[in-house]
Amino acid sequence: VEKLHLLLAEAGLELVPAEIWGHPTVAASARKRGKEPGEILLDVSLHYAAMKGLKDRMKRGRPDIAHFCMLLALGSLLNRAGMLELYVNTYDGRMIGVSPHVRLPRNYNRFVGLVEQLLKEGRVPPNSASPLLWVEPYSLEELLERVAPSRIFLLSEKGGKVGAAELARRVASEPKPMVVVGCFQAGDFSERILKLAHEVVSISQYALDAWVATAKVLSAVEDALNLF
Amino acid sequence: VEKLHLLLAEAGLELVPAEIWGHPTVAASARKRGKEPGEILLDVSLHYAAMKGLKDRMKRGRPDIAHFCMLLALGSLLNRAGMLELYVNTYDGRMIGVSPHVRLPRNYNRFVGLVEQLLKEGRVPPNSASPLLWVEPYSLEELLERVAPSRIFLLSEKGGKVGAAELARRVASEPKPMVVVGCFQAGDFSERILKLAHEVVSISQYALDAWVATAKVLSAVEDALNLF
Repeated sequence: VEKLHLLLAEAGLELVPAEIWGHPTVAASARKRGKEPGEILLDVSLHYAAMKGLKDRMKRGRPDIAHFCMLLALGSLLNRAGMLELYVNTYDGRMIGVSPHVRLPRNYNRFVGLVEQLLKEGRVPPNSASPLLWVEPYSLEELLERVAPSRIFLLSEKGGKVGAAELARRVASEPKPMVVVGCFQAGDFSERILKLAHEVVSISQYALDAWVATAKVLSAVEDALNLF
Repeated sequence: VEKLHLLLAEAGLELVPAEIWGHPTVAASARKRGKEPGEILLDVSLHYAAMKGLKDRMKRGRPDIAHFCMLLALGSLLNRAGMLELYVNTYDGRMIGVSPHVRLPRNYNRFVGLVEQLLKEGRVPPNSASPLLWVEPYSLEELLERVAPSRIFLLSEKGGKVGAAELARRVASEPKPMVVVGCFQAGDFSERILKLAHEVVSISQYALDAWVATAKVLSAVEDALNLF
């Protein structure tokens, strides 16, 4: 393995959709931040009431999950060693590119502000020739064609049972492996994502938080490669 | 090993100290939340200017680090299997007890509100006979006397170099191991904490974020025990 390609999939990271711009909780939280409703991130901790009627609401409005998973991936030994490519796919189908050198805000509220800028401007810093985060001009399927992973492992409770260490050995033996972790709270992967996987695996008898799954896979691969 | 005792040490988790109650950024953030300056958590993302004169400021005002490390520990396979005892020691010397069953808020702002309540009331929920989080009536040294770990491993960049997998084997072979992870951004452990350790170990050539170190140790121990 030269690099591990990590895809955080269907992250609940999107601007408030137009259908609930008029809801009082949305209007209030936008006003408080001096922004328009369409310029702020959907966040279940603020917009719970407004989200009641939204389709797939259990998969949406969770910037915290993507935040944690990205911080873990960017701080991992694999990334520090230049052996990680990180991509974020959002619930609404965007692809976010991530520089391995970005120092993501540790503070949640600052992360939210950064992603709002990213989704509005298309990149951060805006107008930079070498941005730290950017919205890709292609779809997930197009990304996979470009990257052409030798094997795609998708983590799901419904997958075949494989310990993290055993999965790591399989990943490490691939020339260009991709691991897909669902970055949402509850519910299943969409068919669109599921059908991309060569193998669906479960690394635990428990339903794991996305960040725990991310950390376990990265750590196990690092151990399999004796990274220090 | 029956249980792993995990100590998150010197966490930057404290109410704003009296010496900066009068600072404009502190007063403003307290007012915004409808609280007194002494009732809100010190947070470098809000109180950076006010913290300039504070002693050890690089170790303080980082609730996000404790939040993230606690979420990783509570969601780990070790905790799910009933094999983890988690303690949080704060910069100002408090000991926080944590129920293995607490479902910690995922959202940072809600976590902050919960810890403010904890530090004010001594427990959450207040007046509960079986709280989810509580301030212990004893010191770190008294805790260690009660727990009596068979061996205390402290993670530090300055420690002896040991891969995570090798450290995990050593931890797993102890009857009552304790692992200490520093829950601060930069700077060294205090002498008080350092001298408690039987062994100071480094699991990476890089300075790791506290959450990456926490995740790596827990994952490696889980793999050493074949937890699934």
